Amino acid sequence: MSDDDSHGAAGAPSLLSVLVVGAGLIGTSVGLALRRAGVDVYLSDRDAGAAALAADLGAGSVAAPTTEPDLVILALPPSAIPVVLLDLNRRYLTAIFSDVGSVKTKPQVEAEAIGADMTRFIGGHPMAGRERPGPAGARADLFVGRPWVLTPTAASSEQAIERVSRLVELCGADLLLMSAERHDEAVALVSHAPQVMATLTAARLTGAADDLVALAGPGIRDVTRIAASDPELWTDILEGNASVVLAVLDRVAADLATLRASLSGLVGKSTDQQIEEPLSRQGHRAAVAALLAQGNAGRARIPGKHGAPRTEYVAVPVVIPDEPGSLASLFLAAGAAGVNVEDVSIEHSPGQRVGLVELLVQPMAATRLAEALRASGWTVHFEPGS
Amino acid sequence: MSDDDSHGAAGAPSLLSVLVVGAGLIGTSVGLALRRAGVDVYLSDRDAGAAALAADLGAGSVAAPTTEPDLVILALPPSAIPVVLLDLNRRYLTAIFSDVGSVKTKPQVEAEAIGADMTRFIGGHPMAGRERPGPAGARADLFVGRPWVLTPTAASSEQAIERVSRLVELCGADLLLMSAERHDEAVALVSHAPQVMATLTAARLTGAADDLVALAGPGIRDVTRIAASDPELWTDILEGNASVVLAVLDRVAADLATLRASLSGLVGKSTDQQIEEPLSRQGHRAAVAALLAQGNAGRARIPGKHGAPRTEYVAVPVVIPDEPGSLASLFLAAGAAGVNVEDVSIEHSPGQRVGLVELLVQPMAATRLAEALRASGWTVHFEPGS
Repeated sequence: MSDDDSHGAAGAPSLLSVLVVGAGLIGTSVGLALRRAGVDVYLSDRDAGAAALAADLGAGSVAAPTTEPDLVILALPPSAIPVVLLDLNRRYLTAIFSDVGSVKTKPQVEAEAIGADMTRFIGGHPMAGRERPGPAGARADLFVGRPWVLTPTAASSEQAIERVSRLVELCGADLLLMSAERHDEAVALVSHAPQVMATLTAARLTGAADDLVALAGPGIRDVTRIAASDPELWTDILEGNASVVLAVLDRVAADLATLRASLSGLVGKSTDQQIEEPLSRQGHRAAVAALLAQGNAGRARIPGKHGAPRTEYVAVPVVIPDEPGSLASLFLAAGAAGVNVEDVSIEHSPGQRVGLVELLVQPMAATRLAEALRASGWTVHFEPGS
Repeated sequence: MSDDDSHGAAGAPSLLSVLVVGAGLIGTSVGLALRRAGVDVYLSDRDAGAAALAADLGAGSVAAPTTEPDLVILALPPSAIPVVLLDLNRRYLTAIFSDVGSVKTKPQVEAEAIGADMTRFIGGHPMAGRERPGPAGARADLFVGRPWVLTPTAASSEQAIERVSRLVELCGADLLLMSAERHDEAVALVSHAPQVMATLTAARLTGAADDLVALAGPGIRDVTRIAASDPELWTDILEGNASVVLAVLDRVAADLATLRASLSGLVGKSTDQQIEEPLSRQGHRAAVAALLAQGNAGRARIPGKHGAPRTEYVAVPVVIPDEPGSLASLFLAAGAAGVNVEDVSIEHSPGQRVGLVELLVQPMAATRLAEALRASGWTVHFEPGS
């Protein structure tokens, strides 16, 4: 999974000029990161306005490269990769190529089928993004510390692997080498299928009456956050990884069918009917509980920040007035106590101009923080052991 | 939906003593809120330790009531309500009863069937909670500004409605009157089905290899947050509302089946096969895009904080060192600019001791905030119009 042994150890490979095709969120962010590292960046986009904005933001120049670029990055939807790659292969005869799409196998197979030069192409996928699409959402530090998967094949030249690895390094990302198939299996599981699940959940709200939707709270808000994603891009992604996503969704559908069968079995079986079908009802309940427990176990496997296993932070809840300056004073008090706030959530009580802030801190620091805040006059809802 | 016209207008109904049965998160929080309002609160729980902890936290007394309480709150799982209600009906002959469960129809029907006194019972559901269960997670302000649904029936006495409405008022919640059936329909849609979807998504991770799960990011983390919920309680909830949840899940299953059919149709159809089946491929893509767009529309209906329609805040991203004091200085600068930070998210870059903080503010305040922070030396990634 690491290329420390085989690549890039003998000094930095040359990466002096890069052409970024596609000035969206990812392409522009790559441009910003490379410009900051002193690389000459050229930007192109069929939407001239997007390219111009990216250039204005400092992601590079909209002029065409005057000489052959060292690297061409195709920051395009997966379905556009093969044809554009073939086209630019013919224009740039020595440049190395990479892409940044969230599907790897299909574009690679199709590019090879239409005769693209696969010795010079390394598929790539920086695992970073934001809901805000387009160049305006771009950040030079978008990739810092994030996984960036490369999917070289037996056809890949050593030079191609080194040059694209250098790109990853300059963007501050963590390089992961995987096969395209393995990558696609991973993203189907942790990204594409979850996107579908969020969409399916949110889709149920479209026909619902206002008084039903009015009871929506933080739970469904989290489940459906990514349901706000761009339908066109996601149609492309789901098509591009269709067979692998299908395999995950088939298992989801099987679990859902089992759950629906259990719930059907439980419908109408009120407590006073337990005597008639005790095993059946308990069997259905056990099946439901088992699925919920499996959800607990799956959830616990998701890594937390800094790529580390999910740390169990302790929340220190503090009531604050919902007005300018409150948070400043609160964090000032936390800082004065020498406590590093790992995460924070602000929970507003609907209809009230008062907020509850939860400061998430290392378990050992929680009591100290709570005491320090109380000493500064804050209303802290924290008891040791809670 | 409001009881302003018919109830509670002629002075506050008397609510001097309350018995809370079940010292979990909700029961203890009710006790804390009522104690703060000067009400005598008695606590009972079959787990004596839980009741003692609740009492220590100030939620009431573990002694049995010396006289008949005005109100008995059954803070128990839905399946326990009918039998306990009937039992306590016989012990307390004039007290009013309510519960706090997230399922209303089934317990109400069953309680009536076994002969409980329905003139004295008003079903209730405070729409508040936390992942942290038990009395230790309780807060006196848990219900402040939150919806609290009451589901009176034709059998309910005027006195019962008034007294339970007074409970809601003393807890600082927003009273909503609905039929039990309407309530159950709402929670199936916005709470119970989303719980199932989060669970199904998380359950897929249990058998997956570490290198696949390692690519999990913020998207799946949000989708599966509530998958960490208690399986026993949720088995009870899903059983209690089984037929209504089934109706939602049937529609989810139908959407999922349609999507799987579209993806199956797209598998293997590479771009060079478009010529053979142009309509078919475009038809499948259109079906996928339509579902994703429906997800967008459903997501947009979810209300935001303060019960208001979801406000589109603007995020002002700021890079900060991940160390004590950074957030304090940042919020101090925001406060000095007179900007109210509506929400905040801290995005850590895995493997790097640097963090990106996004301050969410009203659109009109974003530019002012960005300029003020830059003037104080912060690295702000915000451009007007982004």
